[in-house]
Amino acid sequence: MSWENNVRRVVPYVAGEQPKISDVIKLNTNENPYPPAPSVQNILDNFNISKMKLYPDPNAEVLINAIAENYQVKPEQVFVGVGSDDVISMAFLTFFNSQRPVLFPDVTYSFYDVWADVYKIPYQQIKLTEDFRINPDDYKIPNGGIIFPNPNAPTGVLESVDLIEEILQVNPDSVVMIDEAYIDFGGESCLPLLKKYENLLVIQTYSKSRSMAGMRIGFAIGNEKLIRYLNDVKFSINSYTMNHLTLLCGAESLKDDNYFRSCTSKIIETREDTKQKLAELGFIFPDSKSNFIFASHPDYDASIIFEKLKARKIFVRYWNKPRINQYMRITIGTPEEMNCLLTALQEIMGELNR
Amino acid sequence: MSWENNVRRVVPYVAGEQPKISDVIKLNTNENPYPPAPSVQNILDNFNISKMKLYPDPNAEVLINAIAENYQVKPEQVFVGVGSDDVISMAFLTFFNSQRPVLFPDVTYSFYDVWADVYKIPYQQIKLTEDFRINPDDYKIPNGGIIFPNPNAPTGVLESVDLIEEILQVNPDSVVMIDEAYIDFGGESCLPLLKKYENLLVIQTYSKSRSMAGMRIGFAIGNEKLIRYLNDVKFSINSYTMNHLTLLCGAESLKDDNYFRSCTSKIIETREDTKQKLAELGFIFPDSKSNFIFASHPDYDASIIFEKLKARKIFVRYWNKPRINQYMRITIGTPEEMNCLLTALQEIMGELNR
Repeated sequence: MSWENNVRRVVPYVAGEQPKISDVIKLNTNENPYPPAPSVQNILDNFNISKMKLYPDPNAEVLINAIAENYQVKPEQVFVGVGSDDVISMAFLTFFNSQRPVLFPDVTYSFYDVWADVYKIPYQQIKLTEDFRINPDDYKIPNGGIIFPNPNAPTGVLESVDLIEEILQVNPDSVVMIDEAYIDFGGESCLPLLKKYENLLVIQTYSKSRSMAGMRIGFAIGNEKLIRYLNDVKFSINSYTMNHLTLLCGAESLKDDNYFRSCTSKIIETREDTKQKLAELGFIFPDSKSNFIFASHPDYDASIIFEKLKARKIFVRYWNKPRINQYMRITIGTPEEMNCLLTALQEIMGELNR
Repeated sequence: MSWENNVRRVVPYVAGEQPKISDVIKLNTNENPYPPAPSVQNILDNFNISKMKLYPDPNAEVLINAIAENYQVKPEQVFVGVGSDDVISMAFLTFFNSQRPVLFPDVTYSFYDVWADVYKIPYQQIKLTEDFRINPDDYKIPNGGIIFPNPNAPTGVLESVDLIEEILQVNPDSVVMIDEAYIDFGGESCLPLLKKYENLLVIQTYSKSRSMAGMRIGFAIGNEKLIRYLNDVKFSINSYTMNHLTLLCGAESLKDDNYFRSCTSKIIETREDTKQKLAELGFIFPDSKSNFIFASHPDYDASIIFEKLKARKIFVRYWNKPRINQYMRITIGTPEEMNCLLTALQEIMGELNR
């Protein structure tokens, strides 16, 4: 017997590498290549550190009100957390307490099974179709909850709002979470379904389309009852999750919708251009509606390309996992970064052909 | 049957009020009346928001290294979180997984039973002695873990390092957590015991002595094995808990030890002065070694004084709970704030005597 007997043992999620060397082209964690709205700088410039001595607003009102206004919902329908990981983790803890398994795709955000494990939630991974699509019929079985990203990660595949509604229709007894981390890159949000389904929770993040991964802001929008339960759990863990500066910067960044749209448009344009050029190099990929492309090449081993890119200080993401070990997930950076990537890929393929 | 059947229902912790009106004297959440080290302002002044687009360092190295250096431990012995609440909550989840009850005092930080409830951890509250002391013999029973603050909150009572060691000696099979949120106000830290006890976890915070409640930084120091387990759980919940600015500000603030010591000295001085004046008004209180005083008056009802102070925009903390419903917890503010409080108390007692 030892204190170690009572330790919760888990296999943690492994995030994409955050290289400490300089001059890298970082296309491995789906960050935005453009800075946040310029006026966010004013928040920092005008912040006096003496405010740091007081606790931040535990109810995060300034941020929640800004999000509610932006998405035209009530503040009571908004929950915020330290990145969408914090939000989803809290939602797992709050809503997935059934003996029945929680359902999510076999190829998806690889944090879902980690959260299920840490909180001892039973789960069942549902196989995506051959071309990485969700078959809604697969989600018509007894379950303790449902979650998937839309567009899905790491595939980038977008499903329709109709498909989500079909799943909601047969699952009134489960909370259905749609993780819309990548929805702003050309997808259609399922937020309008909130009017019809009180068991729908939609999660979004500031880390991708809103260029603020470094500030850690995620949020969920749902029925007021759902949000109340989520807040009860949140306030049973940490009263003050969002720091003072984060609240202010997060609220400020929403004010500049034109800037936001111009950044996402540029990324979409670069993505479409990159798709074409990757196809010309013989890469295949499911059609992506996100800020990344999940690419494979019939003639070259993905793990080898991955390593050779890394040797050139170009970081993409690779998983040595069933079904996807011949794919790389490539974040859409600036046009210049994508050109460097494409040139490097050409060189690497040339090397491998010798 | 409904989705609500699978919701985790909890009674959340209620933090001290964060009044939104101005001109208040806020002595209710043990914040520091003085700003953080002046050089922290430079961090904000020099931070370019374009850095916000990238994820922060998930390993929080800059902050962990600064804490390790400050406390002369290895970086592998340091864990950081979003305030000590985040750290302790994570430690409950990681280390308290026994069927046996976790032990903590009946009068203590009122978040402990909330965490136990949310994570479904059995617990037993151990009665403090009549004068709010810990009897170490009470902690020599089978248990699944032990936690208490030293100095205790809301009493302010400091126990000796010897008492902590006595408890550690008989509990090699439990993780013993000492919550040193208030240790810098004249207490002796039990950190030196880490050399002898691998099951000791010491938790501290930036929210009190370090004047940074608004930035949300807490940390734990312990054996490398303990910290590794804690990190495994942390990385199973949220890879990036500490945002970029927080890491930089937290590290910077540790550089100015003279400033830190001058602030805590001033608070200690004000506390001792306030003790004397409260005693002159007939208040009784356990001797506090923290930045608050837990005061009661034999002739006046604490809840009435509390409300009358609030009407004067002076906020202190009051709990309507067994054993402590005749006490108010009064944070030590500036000398000016304490004078306002003392004047108000005199006036209120005058009114109540009429």
